[in-house]
Amino acid sequence: MKMIKEKLEQAVEILKEKGIDVWLIFVRESHTLTDPSLPLIFEGSCTWQSAFLISATGKTTAIVGNLDFPAVRDLGVYDNVISYKASIRDDLLKEISALDPRSIALNFSTNDHVSDGLTHGMFLLLNDYLKDTDYVNRFVSAEKIISALRGRKSPSELDRLRKAINITIDIFDEVTRMLKPGLSEKEIAQFVLKRVDELGVGLSWDPASCPSVFTGPDTAGAHYGPTDRKTARGHIMNMDFGVRTDDYVSDLQRTWYFLREGETDAPAEVKKAFDAVRDAITKAAEFLRPGVEGWEVDNVARQHIINCGFDEYPHALGHQVGREAHDGAGVLCPIWERYGDLPYLKVEAGQVYTLEPRVYCKGFGVATIEEEVVVTENGCKFLSPRQMELFLVK
Amino acid sequence: MKMIKEKLEQAVEILKEKGIDVWLIFVRESHTLTDPSLPLIFEGSCTWQSAFLISATGKTTAIVGNLDFPAVRDLGVYDNVISYKASIRDDLLKEISALDPRSIALNFSTNDHVSDGLTHGMFLLLNDYLKDTDYVNRFVSAEKIISALRGRKSPSELDRLRKAINITIDIFDEVTRMLKPGLSEKEIAQFVLKRVDELGVGLSWDPASCPSVFTGPDTAGAHYGPTDRKTARGHIMNMDFGVRTDDYVSDLQRTWYFLREGETDAPAEVKKAFDAVRDAITKAAEFLRPGVEGWEVDNVARQHIINCGFDEYPHALGHQVGREAHDGAGVLCPIWERYGDLPYLKVEAGQVYTLEPRVYCKGFGVATIEEEVVVTENGCKFLSPRQMELFLVK
Repeated sequence: MKMIKEKLEQAVEILKEKGIDVWLIFVRESHTLTDPSLPLIFEGSCTWQSAFLISATGKTTAIVGNLDFPAVRDLGVYDNVISYKASIRDDLLKEISALDPRSIALNFSTNDHVSDGLTHGMFLLLNDYLKDTDYVNRFVSAEKIISALRGRKSPSELDRLRKAINITIDIFDEVTRMLKPGLSEKEIAQFVLKRVDELGVGLSWDPASCPSVFTGPDTAGAHYGPTDRKTARGHIMNMDFGVRTDDYVSDLQRTWYFLREGETDAPAEVKKAFDAVRDAITKAAEFLRPGVEGWEVDNVARQHIINCGFDEYPHALGHQVGREAHDGAGVLCPIWERYGDLPYLKVEAGQVYTLEPRVYCKGFGVATIEEEVVVTENGCKFLSPRQMELFLVK
Repeated sequence: MKMIKEKLEQAVEILKEKGIDVWLIFVRESHTLTDPSLPLIFEGSCTWQSAFLISATGKTTAIVGNLDFPAVRDLGVYDNVISYKASIRDDLLKEISALDPRSIALNFSTNDHVSDGLTHGMFLLLNDYLKDTDYVNRFVSAEKIISALRGRKSPSELDRLRKAINITIDIFDEVTRMLKPGLSEKEIAQFVLKRVDELGVGLSWDPASCPSVFTGPDTAGAHYGPTDRKTARGHIMNMDFGVRTDDYVSDLQRTWYFLREGETDAPAEVKKAFDAVRDAITKAAEFLRPGVEGWEVDNVARQHIINCGFDEYPHALGHQVGREAHDGAGVLCPIWERYGDLPYLKVEAGQVYTLEPRVYCKGFGVATIEEEVVVTENGCKFLSPRQMELFLVK
């Protein structure tokens, strides 16, 4: 509740800053399909068509079905809570007319999935309800509002993110202690899931690939569930994993090397791969600061990997983390069409990014590290304790 | 996997029946925002923009980002799995051109939320990708396809629904045994949640109001979380509750009466309210059969309630149940604007509906029963063992 109030106040400030008069969140059956912005401005779920109007003047209005009304009223965070029975049309028209906004931000975006919570059917409904007014010509994307509102973490949000990171790091340490050659990826994942269960936390993303475990040179690479493939001496193994606690998540990766008989350290080519990844993160973090564009940060890491003689990684350097593991624009990504305009978004203070380059080390496996940083006024700070050396398994 | 294959085959038959050439499911970051149709035709989640093309010819194609590719390929249910790196545009254009459909069904709907999983931003992207072709003029709503595909339950889907119902009924029985005057709604809900946890099942809807518990004449009515209000002699109490097991849910309501000192049965006015609800369900079930329209079924129950001298219930008589507690069109609802065209949809064999009229009994509370029925070739069958009498608490 406290956080909802803080976020609503922050939203009003952002509306003023961006010069947008009203932000309209328009949802229905939100338990089945949850607009990713809804939990920022509302606690609970709505059954019938529901409209949340946040005005740059500071006024907040919720129009909801009669069955949802008591819960929304008793939340006590909206100035004005209106109940309807047969149709939302009249109340919606009346409230929008009273605010008479020059611009109405809606949750659609071609670039950013967390800013794209309005379904096409709901967009058509809205156009129908407002068809006899000029308001249908005043819709703009809420992308900038949502990007700022999700991105700019408050101190209590950072506390929650740190908590999720620390739990994840502790589990990585436990993994290091239990690892040995001959365990399957699935067995290692089961160990992690057992710890998650015992600690009473959730998973950051789809359980089918959280954690992801990849061992050896023939691994799938990424976004694939653990298999029956077994760890073996001479393998590089990496894990991509995060937990959800208090509605906030972590997203981290670590790399292990399984020493062969007689080895006391990893072979030179494995160390070279790991070091390339680690140093790419260092260089990107040194460059990262408010005002730079996402692609520039990606490029610092990408060029370092290429300069070290490796293939560039087939994905972005990093993404924001918050309520979701992929928490929306901006992204530290290359200029590829599938990223749309995202590469050009400027980094802002308060944002939390992953830094996660990867290198395929032929004959051994994939070396990858993923850290989390928070952008400060003039640079960035690591939220996660860094992995500076390979974890060696005897 | 077996169910995905069955549903894909069913989808092809439905496309032929409805005269639609191709059904296109277009998603991204599906773990954050899951198109409700995706789990019917795919197991797992997609990170980048992903297109699933199901053709009336029987051909199935998935176009996904390179990181998601191995998992989708290894699912083994799509004839043709294509991987892309920089943009989905070229592959999407090529595959659609090869199918050359006269109609392309997309997941948007003003009426039905489970048919409305395509976001407006993704709709705009699709229009951009296909802008130089005539395909942008061939989009139709997938509402009819989805309605049929979700609605027509296979025998194994009915088994799962029965399992969820039976667990719910067992918990209601345990509630009857533990109830006494002086327990708060919250304490009763906590008892239910503890049993859910011990049984290792999930909840059918938002935990804030699953179960809902309403006791006495001053209750919120519906869609409201349990409060500190205490049960007392002379109260009617009702509970709205369901569990999720094997991805399928239940949704049932039951009513209890707390006997006053000296009473051996409920007062006549309480029994009259309960009987009105029970008999409205009986009459609606006797009427319900393939081919009738939703509003007609609602009207049978609604008129019975009114004829008994009570206010009509401020919601629909019933909704479908399946993967969600509100599983989409059709609905047994009155002709109110917020229901759009839904009241006029025809009932089909294989659909599972709730029947849930309610009556406010002045001075006592809300009497309500919710049962589940499956529509058969010439009528309907109760899936839930019915509540025929008030549960009395001594």
